[in-house]
Amino acid sequence: MPPPPITMLEAFENPAPERDYEIVHTAHEFTSVCPVTGQPDFGQLTFTYVADQKCVELRSLKLYLQSFRNEGVFYEALVNRLLADLVQLLEPRRMEVRGSFTVRGGMSTVVIARHPS
Amino acid sequence: MPPPPITMLEAFENPAPERDYEIVHTAHEFTSVCPVTGQPDFGQLTFTYVADQKCVELRSLKLYLQSFRNEGVFYEALVNRLLADLVQLLEPRRMEVRGSFTVRGGMSTVVIARHPS
Amino acid sequence: MPPPPITMLEAFENPAPERDYEIVHTAHEFTSVCPVTGQPDFGQLTFTYVADQKCVELRSLKLYLQSFRNEGVFYEALVNRLLADLVQLLEPRRMEVRGSFTVRGGMSTVVIARHPS
Amino acid sequence: MPPPPITMLEAFENPAPERDYEIVHTAHEFTSVCPVTGQPDFGQLTFTYVADQKCVELRSLKLYLQSFRNEGVFYEALVNRLLADLVQLLEPRRMEVRGSFTVRGGMSTVVIARHPS
Amino acid sequence: MPPPPITMLEAFENPAPERDYEIVHTAHEFTSVCPVTGQPDFGQLTFTYVADQKCVELRSLKLYLQSFRNEGVFYEALVNRLLADLVQLLEPRRMEVRGSFTVRGGMSTVVIARHPS
Amino acid sequence: MPPPPITMLEAFENPAPERDYEIVHTAHEFTSVCPVTGQPDFGQLTFTYVADQKCVELRSLKLYLQSFRNEGVFYEALVNRLLADLVQLLEPRRMEVRGSFTVRGGMSTVVIARHPS
Amino acid sequence: MPPPPITMLEAFENPAPERDYEIVHTAHEFTSVCPVTGQPDFGQLTFTYVADQKCVELRSLKLYLQSFRNEGVFYEALVNRLLADLVQLLEPRRMEVRGSFTVRGGMSTVVIARHPS
Amino acid sequence: MPPPPITMLEAFENPAPERDYEIVHTAHEFTSVCPVTGQPDFGQLTFTYVADQKCVELRSLKLYLQSFRNEGVFYEALVNRLLADLVQLLEPRRMEVRGSFTVRGGMSTVVIARHPS
Amino acid sequence: MPPPPITMLEAFENPAPERDYEIVHTAHEFTSVCPVTGQPDFGQLTFTYVADQKCVELRSLKLYLQSFRNEGVFYEALVNRLLADLVQLLEPRRMEVRGSFTVRGGMSTVVIARHPS
Amino acid sequence: MPPPPITMLEAFENPAPERDYEIVHTAHEFTSVCPVTGQPDFGQLTFTYVADQKCVELRSLKLYLQSFRNEGVFYEALVNRLLADLVQLLEPRRMEVRGSFTVRGGMSTVVIARHPS
Repeated sequence: MPPPPITMLEAFENPAPERDYEIVHTAHEFTSVCPVTGQPDFGQLTFTYVADQKCVELRSLKLYLQSFRNEGVFYEALVNRLLADLVQLLEPRRMEVRGSFTVRGGMSTVVIARHPS
Repeated sequence: MPPPPITMLEAFENPAPERDYEIVHTAHEFTSVCPVTGQPDFGQLTFTYVADQKCVELRSLKLYLQSFRNEGVFYEALVNRLLADLVQLLEPRRMEVRGSFTVRGGMSTVVIARHPS
Repeated sequence: MPPPPITMLEAFENPAPERDYEIVHTAHEFTSVCPVTGQPDFGQLTFTYVADQKCVELRSLKLYLQSFRNEGVFYEALVNRLLADLVQLLEPRRMEVRGSFTVRGGMSTVVIARHPS
Repeated sequence: MPPPPITMLEAFENPAPERDYEIVHTAHEFTSVCPVTGQPDFGQLTFTYVADQKCVELRSLKLYLQSFRNEGVFYEALVNRLLADLVQLLEPRRMEVRGSFTVRGGMSTVVIARHPS
Repeated sequence: MPPPPITMLEAFENPAPERDYEIVHTAHEFTSVCPVTGQPDFGQLTFTYVADQKCVELRSLKLYLQSFRNEGVFYEALVNRLLADLVQLLEPRRMEVRGSFTVRGGMSTVVIARHPS
Repeated sequence: MPPPPITMLEAFENPAPERDYEIVHTAHEFTSVCPVTGQPDFGQLTFTYVADQKCVELRSLKLYLQSFRNEGVFYEALVNRLLADLVQLLEPRRMEVRGSFTVRGGMSTVVIARHPS
Repeated sequence: MPPPPITMLEAFENPAPERDYEIVHTAHEFTSVCPVTGQPDFGQLTFTYVADQKCVELRSLKLYLQSFRNEGVFYEALVNRLLADLVQLLEPRRMEVRGSFTVRGGMSTVVIARHPS
Repeated sequence: MPPPPITMLEAFENPAPERDYEIVHTAHEFTSVCPVTGQPDFGQLTFTYVADQKCVELRSLKLYLQSFRNEGVFYEALVNRLLADLVQLLEPRRMEVRGSFTVRGGMSTVVIARHPS
Repeated sequence: MPPPPITMLEAFENPAPERDYEIVHTAHEFTSVCPVTGQPDFGQLTFTYVADQKCVELRSLKLYLQSFRNEGVFYEALVNRLLADLVQLLEPRRMEVRGSFTVRGGMSTVVIARHPS
Repeated sequence: MPPPPITMLEAFENPAPERDYEIVHTAHEFTSVCPVTGQPDFGQLTFTYVADQKCVELRSLKLYLQSFRNEGVFYEALVNRLLADLVQLLEPRRMEVRGSFTVRGGMSTVVIARHPS
C-alpha cells in the first residue's frame, strides 16, 4: 500500500480557531481491493475532527480517497493509515476515522481509530 | 459573506428564566451557494440552546436563514457565523448549532459548534 | 393561557414508593392554537417522571391536555406550564416534559424542561 | 392481581458466574386486561439482568407471562411486580424490567424499574 | 458443546499496536441447534475489540462460527464460550461479544459478555 | 369455535349508498388461542368493504373480535368465519378480510378471503 | 355536520386544461370530534384529482378543513361530504378523497371515495 | 438433492373449499448449503396458494424445510422442487413459491415459480 | 415565469433507439419561490421517459432546473411547463414529470403530468 | 466501451425449462467511471429474467460486472449493453435489466431496458 502520497491532500486555514468545534466528513462510496483475493471491497469512511489551525479541503480528500480504488488494502491497516496521513496534514486537536465495510462471506466489519488514542 | 445583518433577528422575553430548559429549532430547508463553484448547497440546521433572558423569535430566525439563499458560504464558516450571531443576540446560558449538508461528490458534511466551546 | 385548571388532573397512590422507577406517558395527538396567527399547532408531548407518593391518572391527563385544544399557547410557555402543573400535583422525585411540535414554515421545534432543573 | 404464583418460574445454573455479563429477554406479545375498563391491554416486556448464580429458564418465563392474560393489572404495579418476582427467584447482581404498552386514547406508556433501584 | 476446537481460529499481527483502536466484526447469519428441542436457532454475533499484538483473521472466524451449525448450544453458554476462545487466542486489550437471537415462542434474547468483565 | 355470536355485531345505515366507496378497518391487536397447543396467537385483521345499505359499527366490531380472546381457532377457519359473519350482517357489495399472524416457529402466516370470491 | 359552508373554498383557473394530469394535496393534520364520545379524532386527508377548468386554491382548502376542528363528524360521512363539496366546486374530470384516521380502541380506519364512483 | 422425502409433508382438509382465498406462509429462517463451495446459504421462502381440498399443515412444512439444512441445493432447482412437492401434495388451484436469498459476493438472488406457470 | 429559456437544455443521441426503454432522472433538491408570498418552495422532481432519437444531457437538465431558483412559480404550472419544454426538446415516445413538494401550512402537494396525456 | 468480452459470462442448463419462472439477481456494488469527468460512478444492477434453456452462472456474472470497474460508460449505453450481452448468451423468454445509480450533482438516475422491448 505505498500510494497515494499524502501530498494529494490540501488544507485551508481554520476560520474559527478560537473555538473547539467538530467537522464530520462522510465518504459514502469508498472502494479498494482485497489484497488476498483481488476482489473489490466497498465501504463508507467518516472523518470527525476538531481542527486546530488547518481544515482539510473537501475535494482533495475526495481525490485522495479515490486513489485507493485499485490498491490492495486490509481494513485495519487502511483506517490507521488514513488517520496517520490526516493527522500529519492537519495536526488537529483530535480526530476519529471510522471505516464501515460491506458484507463479505456473511460478515461485515467496522474499524475505528482515534488521535490521540 | 457580509449579509445578512444580525438586526434581522428578533428576540422575546424568556417565559421561564428561573429554570434551565432546552429549546431546539430545526430548519429543514436551508440553502446557500458554494463560493467556489457557484452551485447551490442544501442542508439542515439545528439550534439547541438554554435561554437566559431572551428567546429567539421563530419567524425572524426563518427570514434570517432565508437571506443566505444567494450568498456564497463555506460550511465551516457558516456554522460559526450563525453561532456567533445568535450568541450575540440572546446571550444564552449555552447553545449548539449543527449544520448537516447534503452529498456533494459522494461526500456529506456535518459541522457542530458550541458556546461556550 | 389561563385555562385549563390544574384541578382537572387526578393522582393515585404510587404502588411502589420504596423504589425509584420511571414512568413515561406520551400523548401523540396534542393540538393547540398559535396565539399570533390563530392557526392550529400539532405536536407530541412526553412526560417522564419518578413518582414519590403519587402517580398521575392517565385519563385525567388526557382530558387536561385536550382542554388546550382551542387555547392560544406559545411552545416555550406551554411546556413550562405543563411541568409546573404536574410538579404541583405529584411532587415527583424528578420529572421531564418534552414537547415536539410539527413543521411550521419549514422549521420544527422541540422544548424540554426538567424538575429539578 | 394475586396470580400467577412465582412458583411457575424456573431457574438454571449460571454457566459463567465468574463474569458480569448481560442477558436480555424481550417478550413481544404481552397482553393483560385493564382493571378499570375490562378492555385488553397489549405491550412488550424487556428483562435485562446480570445473573449471579441463577438464570431464568426461558419457557417458564413465557408461561408465567401468559398467565397474566386474563388478569386485571395496572401498568405501574405490573412492572414492579415482575421485577420483585424475578429478583426473588434469581437474586441477580442487577436487573431492569421495562414494559412498553400500546396506545390507549392517543397515549402510550412505558414503565421502567431497576434493582437495585 | 465440545467442538469446535479453538485451533480453527487464526490470528495476524496487529498493524498498529501503538494505538488503541476498535475492530468490530458482525456475523449476520449464525445458526446452531437448541440442545433441548433440537430445533435450529438463528442469530447475529458481534465481536468488538481493541487488539494488542494480534487481530483475528476474518475467514477463520467465519469457519469457526460455521462449525457450530449442528451443535446444541444454550445462548448464555455460547456467548461466554466465544468470548473465552477469542480472548485466549488474541489476548486483546478489551473485547465484547454480543449475540442477538431471533424470536422463539414470542420472545427474543440478547446476551452480551465483556473482557475484562 | 362456536362463539362469539354474530348478534354481537351492529350495523348503521350507509350515509352514501348512491356511491361505491371503500371502508377499511384494521384491528391491530387481535389475539386468540392455538387449538392444538393452547398457546396464544397474535395478529392483525383488516376488513375492506364497499357498503351497500349498512356499515359495521366500529365499537361492536372491536368487542366481537375481543370475544375470540380465549377461543381456539385455526387461521384459515377464522378468516373465513369472520368474512361469513360480516357478509351476513352487512350484505356488502364486496368485502375482503385479511388476517396477518405473527411468527410461530420461524414462520408467519397471512390469510386473505374475499366476497364474492 | 352543517358547517363549514362550501363557500369557504376558492378555485383558480387550470393552467393546462388541454392535458389530463393529476394533482394530489395531502393534509397531514386534520382533526375533528367524534359525534358519539365528544373525543377528538385525528387523521390525514388526501385529495387526488384531474382538473377540468378549475383547480382548488390551497390556502382556502386548508382553512375549509380547519373549520371542521370542533365539529362532530363520522368518518364515512366526512369523506363523502368532502368529495361532494369539491366536486361541486371544481367539476373535475375525476377525483378521489382518502381519509386515514388514527387508532381508536386498537383499530384504525381508512375511507376512500371516488368521483365518478 | 434427493432428500427430504415429500412424505414429511402433511395436509389437512380445507375449511372453506367453496371459496377461492389466499394462504401465505413465510419461512424467515431457511438455510441450506451451496453445492459448489460447501458454504451455508440463507434465505426466506414464501408460499402463496389458493387451496382446493387440502391445506398444508404448518408444522410439517417447517420440519420439511429444516430437512434441507445440510443439503447442497442450487437456488433455481430448490424453488422448483419445493413448488413441485407442494403441488403434488395439495393439488392447489394455484400456488407461487418465492425464495429470496441473502448476499453472496455482493449479489443477492430471488427465484419465483408459479403453478400453473 | 418567462425564464429559463429552453435553450439551456441539451440533448444527445439515443444509444439504443431500436428499443423502448425507460430513463428516470430525479432532482432531489429543487427550489423556487412562491409567487404569492415570496417564500421559498422546495421539492423533488422526477422525469421518466422513453427516448426516441434524443436523450436529455444530465448536466444541462441540472442547470436548467437551478435557473428556477429565484423564479415565482405555481406547482401546477411548473410541472406542465417542464413537461412541455422537455417534450419540445426530446420528442420522446412518452414522458412523465412528477413534482413532489414539501409541507406548507400542514399540506404537501404532488403534481404529475404525462405526454401523451 | 469495448471490454469486457461477453465470453466472460458462463451459462448452465435451466433445471426447470418446462415452466416459466422468474430469476432475479441484484448486484449491489457496481462501479464504473464517468467517460466525461473520469470520476467513479456507483450503482445497483438488477437482472430479472425467465430462462429458456440456459441460466447465467452467478460467479461469472459477478466477474463480468467487475470488469467494468475502470471503464468509462454512460448509464443509458451500459444498461442496453448488459441486456444485449445477456440476451445473446441466454436467449431468455424475457429479460429486464435495471440500473439504479447514485446521486451526482443532486440528481440520481435509473435506466430500465427489457427484451423483448
